Amino acid sequence: MSAPIEISRHRCFGGEVGFYRHASAEIGGEMKFSVFVPDGLGGAKAPALLYLAGLTCTEETFIVKAGAQQHAAKAGYLLVAPDTSPRDRRHPGDDSSWDFGLGAGFYLDATAEPWREGYRMGSYVSSELPAVIEANFPADPARWGVFGHSMGGHGALVTALRHPDKFRSVSAFAPIVAPSTCPWGEKAFSNYLGPDRKTWAEWDATALVESGRRLPPILIDQGLKDQFLERELHPHLFEAACAKAGQKLTLRRHEGYDHGYYFIQTFVGDHIAHHKAILG
Amino acid sequence: MSAPIEISRHRCFGGEVGFYRHASAEIGGEMKFSVFVPDGLGGAKAPALLYLAGLTCTEETFIVKAGAQQHAAKAGYLLVAPDTSPRDRRHPGDDSSWDFGLGAGFYLDATAEPWREGYRMGSYVSSELPAVIEANFPADPARWGVFGHSMGGHGALVTALRHPDKFRSVSAFAPIVAPSTCPWGEKAFSNYLGPDRKTWAEWDATALVESGRRLPPILIDQGLKDQFLERELHPHLFEAACAKAGQKLTLRRHEGYDHGYYFIQTFVGDHIAHHKAILG
Repeated sequence: MSAPIEISRHRCFGGEVGFYRHASAEIGGEMKFSVFVPDGLGGAKAPALLYLAGLTCTEETFIVKAGAQQHAAKAGYLLVAPDTSPRDRRHPGDDSSWDFGLGAGFYLDATAEPWREGYRMGSYVSSELPAVIEANFPADPARWGVFGHSMGGHGALVTALRHPDKFRSVSAFAPIVAPSTCPWGEKAFSNYLGPDRKTWAEWDATALVESGRRLPPILIDQGLKDQFLERELHPHLFEAACAKAGQKLTLRRHEGYDHGYYFIQTFVGDHIAHHKAILG
Repeated sequence: MSAPIEISRHRCFGGEVGFYRHASAEIGGEMKFSVFVPDGLGGAKAPALLYLAGLTCTEETFIVKAGAQQHAAKAGYLLVAPDTSPRDRRHPGDDSSWDFGLGAGFYLDATAEPWREGYRMGSYVSSELPAVIEANFPADPARWGVFGHSMGGHGALVTALRHPDKFRSVSAFAPIVAPSTCPWGEKAFSNYLGPDRKTWAEWDATALVESGRRLPPILIDQGLKDQFLERELHPHLFEAACAKAGQKLTLRRHEGYDHGYYFIQTFVGDHIAHHKAILG
């Protein structure tokens, strides 16, 4: 494992935001990520929260727009935010739409050609990146949480449901909870995973809960003026699956809030408190 | 005065971020601005803080990156953030550099050709925009404060020093305090105001304090790892002028912080508290 190379570092709320690039084995090329490390750890290792961003975002979006560092600084938590897709390894058509390919890795391991080469964001965020962080930053390997937004909310739920021993807490902002049954997810899954819908269930949070996977209590925030709510997000499907399965879920619906970072800014403090209540 | 036209609105911290465009008489073309209005005013008018952004920024930069709305919501204050230059009216060379012309209006009224046509950001931010805000939003005309960053820190200091009856509180992040004597300022002033340096003093915060202008206590935050500190910002010149003149100034120098919005995020709550202590 080669050490990440520093791109820039910025003091922030008495801690430090850093941007890094490294050679990823899963992706087969360079990946970028940002990390916030709070001050005052005194050599100890701290819990780390992995944040997975939405379509078109990068490793910078969350860290500059969400206002999360102030809460992580107070909690003494690391924040880790990777880019949303491979960027180096190019395939035909990877930049022909904003909701597939570049900036739209969907946090799964592609099995269909040509995407299976490099589009392995599932293994990257659940395994390779945490290992890189643990080897190079003061992150406690036993206390990871994961959260995310929209496509990254899907990523957070699926990552936690598939790797509950690694990610012990999970939350999401306006997640795609049932990608097998919405246009964004159908486009992504049919290309990345191929036409056999049975294979899609392994990367679909609602299907995973229905199949018996369980997690600690989940927090989801959803704005009711979200422009993608009706067509893409379908939180009621996940809510119903959780209710039927006995999976604890707090789904908060917020009058007037939309899909963007003004919504995320408003509730990100509650999310970090949710993770802290579980991870300690 | 034509009413501003709504571009978008976003719920945020129990209040609302709005983006607007309007026809500006001073600028002779369209200008854009953002406004945050907190909830709970109950029909009353609230203090308003005008934020002036730095080079290359727009009406979106502060409102999406600074994390200020949470503090304004708690204080019950409006935030108003205009674009940093005319965009509609075009002059030859206005997009040939990042530190002059488009995105670099320097919050002054140009007197030299061709810039005198439209480059009247001084009057726009000190007079026309506040009037538009007061006519269309619940802003108390008697309780305005102004703050800003870098070029906008210069703008905030100069706007308050020139219009102390309108702007009763002022603060700045990493301001250009003596534009007559730094490369950014010399480039802007020689083009916008012409070669006669005597006219520059009317738009130079250090010169204005030296000439006898006074303000309520000023708060300035400055990072010591700011990449522009040595070449462009020169806070010691303003500090010396204030000390000599008996102008109260709190200049806080922060080890390790740079020029960006990670620095601003960290201290913006203190700035809003500073304005609230003066404006009530």
